[in-house]
Amino acid sequence: MSESPLVLVHRPPTFDYMDELLSHNFRILTTHQTSSAPLPVSLSRHASSITAVLNMGMLKIDADLLSHFPSLQLIVCTSVGTDHIDLPECKRRGISVANAGEAYSEDVADCAVGLLISVLRQIPAADRYVRSGKWVKSGDFQLGSKLSGKRVGILGLGSIGSLIAKRLEPFGCIISYNSRRQKQSIPYLYYPDVVSLAANNDVIILCCALNDQTRHIVNREVMEALGKNGIIINVGRGGLIDEKEMVKCLVEGVIGGAGLDVFEKEPEVPEELFGLDNVVLSPHAAMETSGSLDNIAQLALSNLKAFFSNQPLISPVRFD
Amino acid sequence: MSESPLVLVHRPPTFDYMDELLSHNFRILTTHQTSSAPLPVSLSRHASSITAVLNMGMLKIDADLLSHFPSLQLIVCTSVGTDHIDLPECKRRGISVANAGEAYSEDVADCAVGLLISVLRQIPAADRYVRSGKWVKSGDFQLGSKLSGKRVGILGLGSIGSLIAKRLEPFGCIISYNSRRQKQSIPYLYYPDVVSLAANNDVIILCCALNDQTRHIVNREVMEALGKNGIIINVGRGGLIDEKEMVKCLVEGVIGGAGLDVFEKEPEVPEELFGLDNVVLSPHAAMETSGSLDNIAQLALSNLKAFFSNQPLISPVRFD
Repeated sequence: MSESPLVLVHRPPTFDYMDELLSHNFRILTTHQTSSAPLPVSLSRHASSITAVLNMGMLKIDADLLSHFPSLQLIVCTSVGTDHIDLPECKRRGISVANAGEAYSEDVADCAVGLLISVLRQIPAADRYVRSGKWVKSGDFQLGSKLSGKRVGILGLGSIGSLIAKRLEPFGCIISYNSRRQKQSIPYLYYPDVVSLAANNDVIILCCALNDQTRHIVNREVMEALGKNGIIINVGRGGLIDEKEMVKCLVEGVIGGAGLDVFEKEPEVPEELFGLDNVVLSPHAAMETSGSLDNIAQLALSNLKAFFSNQPLISPVRFD
Repeated sequence: MSESPLVLVHRPPTFDYMDELLSHNFRILTTHQTSSAPLPVSLSRHASSITAVLNMGMLKIDADLLSHFPSLQLIVCTSVGTDHIDLPECKRRGISVANAGEAYSEDVADCAVGLLISVLRQIPAADRYVRSGKWVKSGDFQLGSKLSGKRVGILGLGSIGSLIAKRLEPFGCIISYNSRRQKQSIPYLYYPDVVSLAANNDVIILCCALNDQTRHIVNREVMEALGKNGIIINVGRGGLIDEKEMVKCLVEGVIGGAGLDVFEKEPEVPEELFGLDNVVLSPHAAMETSGSLDNIAQLALSNLKAFFSNQPLISPVRFD
């Protein structure tokens, strides 16, 4: 019997039970077992034997790192986005990639709706108001803004975007979208570019992938089109927005508010946002529920097992 | 031509435009124009001429106050709940009462869903985590709890409760309800009492009227039935819950969390809640959007005009 595949596991400490789960079928090496030296150096003895990487965090896997793994056949990510993986280089080297598929879609959609209501109805600001004793001292809290009847433009109508749309319909929201291509058999109005999506909506929700085409897709021009009462919800990636410009637009009142789960340089968040009541900040937690994490652990294991049994991946990333 | 009806207006200072709106058809007297003496004393010269009261706040209208208004024919409230009005005494005196009808229903339903997602996904706590710099210092935020698949029991399936149910369905929630009577042609499971509603659900949402039958309807027994992961959302009235017991249950972990827009002695909120991350506090703001307040001002005016033109009230309160 041949030796079982060697998997390099990059995981948060709380996912220690993955080691046990994987050990039935794989030999494993975790990145935190290695020294504090840069990864390729610390792995030198083993690098050439590694056949799969399980990336349960945001470990950047670029061409340089890949060059140290001559036997690598598979990368399994537990994120939906794969902007931290050099996909063209993987394709060139014949390395397969799997991602989180739709394991998080419901939770991310729930969080997007939660952030939207939280911004419009100022739920965290209201909570601060009560906890600080201001309700007693200063009387009624400021008025919120209605969700019913709002025009909501979704940027990226994939699995997550479609679930957001479905959730917002019974609130009486009017849904439209922008994506790479217009989708057939979708009842929502399509806008071919982001400026017109922003100009014709009260809210834009970002849930598309980050890549060279979408980096800073929400720039100053888009925010000016969205206007002074307009709201941005971002559950995609921080890099979708020109963050520096967004901070200016929020401070200057060019846009009305934002609900942000993601940022350009996480965990760093621009401090100018900390004083704003029209902004709701979330620490990249849109998919962070215990239910989702159980799902993803199982999905990652299933992808690894399928691959090494010569079965198709459960949630493959397609190379464009 | 007879003199136009004299209306006593009790309103927040921000509603000063109501005076102008009303003045086309009515003579008005505002409670804040009067001295700091108790209302009947300060009104003594006019009390006997007042034919209608427009109560845009929580002015308590009890039998004693009513005894000073011998000409009173109509009370228009801008709240949905009328627990601050002595309805049996109004009935006895032949005084008609109008309330907010369904003017706030959408906003209150939106807020209930917003509070529920905020509690499960800990949105205000996450926002505090980011603003305090803990994301950088302490790493990932604690996991939230999934909304999809949750069993949600609605206490009071009227206008607001039905809109909450409709909104939660596409999140994959399983809806059931308790109300005075089982409703025909409603697809949701009915529980004839609140203990069984709590025992069979992960979340209970309170949106029924407060009256002698419903005061403290959520008591210790109900909270124990709901259990340690159970969530209470209250957008009805503070008095629906035994607040003292609820605080104990939250502190002791008998229930899992709460999203509260209303309290027993507003604006006072039990200070024990201020340190809890599993609680979201809101200053009785569920209906507080600019859209709702425009609606309610118009509705109040329409009720007054209808009544004094011998037309039926738009949103009458029925005496049981």
